[in-house]
Amino acid sequence: MSTHNLYVALVHYPVMNRKGMPIGSALTTIDMHDIARASRTFGIKGFYVVTPFADQADLAEQVIAHWTKGVGGELNPSRKEALELIRVASTFEEAVQQIQAKEEQTVVTVATSAKDLENAISITTLKQKLTSNAPHVLVLGTAWGLAEELMETCDLKLEPIKGPSDYNHLSVRSAASIYLDRITNG
Amino acid sequence: MSTHNLYVALVHYPVMNRKGMPIGSALTTIDMHDIARASRTFGIKGFYVVTPFADQADLAEQVIAHWTKGVGGELNPSRKEALELIRVASTFEEAVQQIQAKEEQTVVTVATSAKDLENAISITTLKQKLTSNAPHVLVLGTAWGLAEELMETCDLKLEPIKGPSDYNHLSVRSAASIYLDRITNG
Repeated sequence: MSTHNLYVALVHYPVMNRKGMPIGSALTTIDMHDIARASRTFGIKGFYVVTPFADQADLAEQVIAHWTKGVGGELNPSRKEALELIRVASTFEEAVQQIQAKEEQTVVTVATSAKDLENAISITTLKQKLTSNAPHVLVLGTAWGLAEELMETCDLKLEPIKGPSDYNHLSVRSAASIYLDRITNG
Repeated sequence: MSTHNLYVALVHYPVMNRKGMPIGSALTTIDMHDIARASRTFGIKGFYVVTPFADQADLAEQVIAHWTKGVGGELNPSRKEALELIRVASTFEEAVQQIQAKEEQTVVTVATSAKDLENAISITTLKQKLTSNAPHVLVLGTAWGLAEELMETCDLKLEPIKGPSDYNHLSVRSAASIYLDRITNG
């Protein structure tokens, strides 16, 4: 019954398009639901949805309000509990600052990728680091993954999720769920 | 680099509504994508979408055709590789018969649930059973989970996915992804 000082950030800018060029991606509301539910399941302290686009941020806030303050939460209290974990931030830096303000200490940023990256740490190493109780944020990219310019600012890079084959095209919803399970269990 | 004689079935009838009554649920196309991608990642041999509703089965077949034979697969060959794993069946029994015909031996059916069930086996036990190389099918319910009448026909029941809390409301996409990771890795 361990708890972890762990946050999640889902980034919509800067991420990559299929050609590896930096873009901003559109919000997918089902990502919010799935990753919030996994976050609640695995004891994550907060889930930041990062988008610089005002209309997308408004949509995110409307979804959250519907399920936490509106009729959605009355009909489905479990969904309310999950979506209460979500905060919207306009940049990744803002999300990190919000976590640091809450935790009153420096946050360790952990980039994820579907690819093998130089100097990536293993899940086992990340679990060891979390035993220090320092706050960490697991950073997930939408579209074709986090842009290099954001990846470079992160303190750590985490190993990709692999199966027996070389296929590495999980949805961000699946990747988030598996990462949280691997990091917080066992 | 182990491979497993494992299939997945996503059931839309009979499943439960929020009150535990048996219903048929609507197809969610993102379930097809996410679970196919996780299946491809973790070396699953086939993914059966089970629905008795002809219009829903048609929709499923259209989605599969778009990504495996149409323009979708040309634009995104990785998605093609994943969706090629999907077969549509009108009943769970039909899915099991199709697997048995292909494997030329009896399939072991493994029901999943978000709840602790009597006589449920652990992931470790299931992994041991898979070493026999007998075909197994992991059965996932949409909506509020598999109806009792289907659950009762299954050979085995698998333990639920748990985190440090008692919250057990993962999406079926997340649950499928985590189950496949836990069963095929480590």
